[in-house]
Amino acid sequence: MEDLEVRRPPTLTEQKYLKNKMADPWQESMDHAVVVARKAGAVIRDALQNEVKIMTKSSSVDLVTKTDQRVEKIIIQSVKEKFPTHSFIGEESVSAGEPCILTDNPTWIVDPVDGTTNFVHGFPFVAVSIGFAVNKELEFGVVYSCLEDKMYTGRKGKGAFCDGERLQVSDQTDMRKTIIISELGSNRDPVVVSKIFSTMQKILCIPVHGIRGSGTAATNMCMVASGAVEAFFEIGIHCWDIAAGAVIVTEAGGVLMDVDGGPFDLMSRRMVSANNKTIAERIVKEIEIFPAERDDAPKKK
Amino acid sequence: MEDLEVRRPPTLTEQKYLKNKMADPWQESMDHAVVVARKAGAVIRDALQNEVKIMTKSSSVDLVTKTDQRVEKIIIQSVKEKFPTHSFIGEESVSAGEPCILTDNPTWIVDPVDGTTNFVHGFPFVAVSIGFAVNKELEFGVVYSCLEDKMYTGRKGKGAFCDGERLQVSDQTDMRKTIIISELGSNRDPVVVSKIFSTMQKILCIPVHGIRGSGTAATNMCMVASGAVEAFFEIGIHCWDIAAGAVIVTEAGGVLMDVDGGPFDLMSRRMVSANNKTIAERIVKEIEIFPAERDDAPKKK
Repeated sequence: MEDLEVRRPPTLTEQKYLKNKMADPWQESMDHAVVVARKAGAVIRDALQNEVKIMTKSSSVDLVTKTDQRVEKIIIQSVKEKFPTHSFIGEESVSAGEPCILTDNPTWIVDPVDGTTNFVHGFPFVAVSIGFAVNKELEFGVVYSCLEDKMYTGRKGKGAFCDGERLQVSDQTDMRKTIIISELGSNRDPVVVSKIFSTMQKILCIPVHGIRGSGTAATNMCMVASGAVEAFFEIGIHCWDIAAGAVIVTEAGGVLMDVDGGPFDLMSRRMVSANNKTIAERIVKEIEIFPAERDDAPKKK
Repeated sequence: MEDLEVRRPPTLTEQKYLKNKMADPWQESMDHAVVVARKAGAVIRDALQNEVKIMTKSSSVDLVTKTDQRVEKIIIQSVKEKFPTHSFIGEESVSAGEPCILTDNPTWIVDPVDGTTNFVHGFPFVAVSIGFAVNKELEFGVVYSCLEDKMYTGRKGKGAFCDGERLQVSDQTDMRKTIIISELGSNRDPVVVSKIFSTMQKILCIPVHGIRGSGTAATNMCMVASGAVEAFFEIGIHCWDIAAGAVIVTEAGGVLMDVDGGPFDLMSRRMVSANNKTIAERIVKEIEIFPAERDDAPKKK
């Protein structure tokens, strides 16, 4: 399909393909994201089945780093070959010193293994998360929950899907009938931990039906999109954890906002994602905010 | 196979069957538990797919009660036909006024839908839990996680399995490298809620790798058995939530104890289940105990 310079008139399939491509310049990138996410997920599953089981728990930190790096490399190399002018923000690349700045250039925002603690323990929520932004605006998101083998996708203006089935957020507006999902995070600073628990306790006692925690932001957002929970909020997440989920939630009819009720900011490391504004704003009222340095903050030398 | 009164000598298959039956008098009951759990799970999935999606959220409480009752009836009727002398303790029967007393008689301890809040919301952990005790001792447990389609079984002295694969708890003894799973429960009494959050906060700050919550005790115990988490503890659970899981955890090499470190008591509504004694005892140190009336307490008139 790449070589359309031939002198014959385009076939019907080719005409349809060209029309689609003109109508949606990012469809090809999104298709590629799905393919590469599935491939990355298979590598993660393999690592889990063949390596985690035979290693001692003390060597698990090395394995997770190795798998993270390997999977990110697979994704970025594959995308670079196909779209050489595109930019990348990847968890591992940023760890290795690459900048974490969102420009106007088409940018792939990649978390190769979302839920690394789950991965090490074999807890069943581990996802490949690929978001894509152009002119600093998110265009599509792909989350592959690889142990469950569920492929979530969202394309701006075109809806969100899980394995072909359209996603729709819950229609609940009564906070007392919701399930909220959140995470305790990895920060063990006593002040931060106290604020997190205090927030959760206040939300539980609104009261709500329950609070859950799966250990991965990407999957949590897909659960908001599918209507299994009404909202997910967290302070401390990174842009690569939520870029893909952000499209999936909004395309399933949900909303995103900052934890202070202001507009959602991908690089701010804080977010409320919910089925609707009523629920999101009710959660905002209870959140005890603590500082988290922005993803795009200038690096200290 | 039931009619072995014929005058021909038993076939090899029949001899093997009789030998097994003599060696393990409860194998037939366990086989039946697996069959009926799978059947019950199909009814739950059906209810979720056909009814939850079309109803308003406000009618969901009725649906869950209806499904709970219907599934418990299916299980008990099916077992009664096959084993007319056996006794039952079922969540719905006890709610309806039946006694919750464990006698020496072979007793089926049934939670038709463990994770009712999850069920209403379509959160992916919902289980059928069937435990079986004789002389007040648990003989086998069957947990069918019906949305994941995973069948967990444990038979005293014979190991625990998930879909035929043998389960083994995690070998971790370093509390700082564990994932702990617990639940916030349904009690919204501020004193109780404060104790629950205080316990969680102390455990998180040991520190541990993370805390998770799936919303079902039965599945949580299966995650301990499979090694995905190191421990699950809760005060407020009922015997039908944990009877099956108790066998599965111990047969996978895990331990059970009371939240005060004493011996596990099925009717006490409190439990720590863990991969080993070291982790269980470390958790016991942090638990702030609150009262929960025993399942077998005399009923108030």
